Amino acid sequence: MPDHFLALDWGTTNLRAHVADATGRSLLRRDFALGVAGLAPGEAARRFAEEVRPALAAEGLPALLCGMIGSTLGWQAVPYLDCPASLADLAGALCRIDQPGPPVWIVPGLRAQRPGDGGPDVMRGEEVQIFGWAMADPARQRGSHLVCHPGTHAKWVRLVDNRIERFVTAMTGELFAVLRTHSALRVADAVESESAFAAGLAAAGDGGALAARLFTARSRVVGGDLPAQSAESYLSGLLIGAEVAATPGLLGVAPGADIALIGDPALCARYERALAAHGHATTAHDGEAAVLAGLAALYRELFPC
Amino acid sequence: MPDHFLALDWGTTNLRAHVADATGRSLLRRDFALGVAGLAPGEAARRFAEEVRPALAAEGLPALLCGMIGSTLGWQAVPYLDCPASLADLAGALCRIDQPGPPVWIVPGLRAQRPGDGGPDVMRGEEVQIFGWAMADPARQRGSHLVCHPGTHAKWVRLVDNRIERFVTAMTGELFAVLRTHSALRVADAVESESAFAAGLAAAGDGGALAARLFTARSRVVGGDLPAQSAESYLSGLLIGAEVAATPGLLGVAPGADIALIGDPALCARYERALAAHGHATTAHDGEAAVLAGLAALYRELFPC
Repeated sequence: MPDHFLALDWGTTNLRAHVADATGRSLLRRDFALGVAGLAPGEAARRFAEEVRPALAAEGLPALLCGMIGSTLGWQAVPYLDCPASLADLAGALCRIDQPGPPVWIVPGLRAQRPGDGGPDVMRGEEVQIFGWAMADPARQRGSHLVCHPGTHAKWVRLVDNRIERFVTAMTGELFAVLRTHSALRVADAVESESAFAAGLAAAGDGGALAARLFTARSRVVGGDLPAQSAESYLSGLLIGAEVAATPGLLGVAPGADIALIGDPALCARYERALAAHGHATTAHDGEAAVLAGLAALYRELFPC
Repeated sequence: MPDHFLALDWGTTNLRAHVADATGRSLLRRDFALGVAGLAPGEAARRFAEEVRPALAAEGLPALLCGMIGSTLGWQAVPYLDCPASLADLAGALCRIDQPGPPVWIVPGLRAQRPGDGGPDVMRGEEVQIFGWAMADPARQRGSHLVCHPGTHAKWVRLVDNRIERFVTAMTGELFAVLRTHSALRVADAVESESAFAAGLAAAGDGGALAARLFTARSRVVGGDLPAQSAESYLSGLLIGAEVAATPGLLGVAPGADIALIGDPALCARYERALAAHGHATTAHDGEAAVLAGLAALYRELFPC
């Protein structure tokens, strides 16, 4: 196999590309404002060939792509793989783009049935992070682990003996974004406030009646016990507090279980505070390193030594 | 007292005006696209004098105004009256605008502490509807009643011996609006679907973990078990189902209690379905008639015979 490959995390809003070796070490990294949400049909292949490869001087290298690039809005729609699924299952379901030149593979997303009658849930990209996270420590590859990946669409994932067994998506980040931008909870001149965040966490209670609790981010301002500029921090606490109070239960996770957080450090820190209030011990892990480790592991599955 | 008065329900998006008699009978009605959200500072007084009065040929009549017109964005900020509050309390706290000519009063809104540490909640306008609703039947003026006023900011109100004791606002309608317009749950070509609404109601469960349940309006579409055009009806069922499952409990209302719905008939019908699934018997009542009856009752308090 070639010594190096192109490792691409190609998501909704951004494309992060590395030239990496088979151990997952990055030799070169470039970001591109080529999020899937902004791509016209057919555009992904062209921009990849004309911009991404040249920018990384990676003309001859095979490429592994994960994330929303495998959705109907991306380069090519790659069917979801059903859970439970291991890294080897994922490697076996890679989709090779039908084109001349060095091979390009897209990692399929995962689909899992939610507990009860919750219907299907889906992810694209986080599965690579989670397997990459597990690569770093043999203890993570045995037994049951709960991983939370905060973000626009936060993922809560149960990994059992290194297979993704089930997961649930909470659209907390998107709720925060649309409410702070488009709703009566919108405030001008928001200032971050630790104490308002804590008040929001407390107001989340057991996570129930969220539409009613959300209104307190407004009524506390007009009713006189929350400064308007702190309402956004309060809203953040309320939404994250409601998520962490109720989502682990959907996965059958016991109160107080250990939880691994993978993602943006500032956002992970907020989740740590919220989870601590519910008695969960947490560890925080870098998402970018996890993607790279996961893509490298898939690359080694493709080209076993 | 003059035989007739101007009865105005002046809300965020619309102004509905009646010439009414002291019994609440409407002699003339006109709607104006003069919602408080679109008013510049000082504009309310001018538009009222130059457009509303002339259009209703009501030059000499006293006027009673309720709704968001009493907020900081309206004609004049009128302080909230604290609960518990009766119609007589409301009449005693009417704010008369300081200007020459026939009198103009604005009805104050109400403020109540939520149960537990929920902070203050507020309303402007619904209090008049609720007292008006109670006017129509002496049985409503005795004992305890739960009234739900669905809408952008739905109000759940406990009326005890004809006093508004406490209430909770759920921003269900606004969540629906921002999610269908600005989020990943947005769909083109939505078509109303009874069965998708019912599936959304079922998916709401006990109302907890809402951010996680909301994502099913997307994952069921991409996962293949919900047609995209039905996702909006599903979302409506999910949001209303979550609201009715959890909000009455915040007011200490027993499961299965009778609930009076006041508002738009189509929306009330959705709430009736959702509440029936939780064992609540409901009655539906016209909001416009209730406002008029409430304003007339306040007018009679101002000018007792």
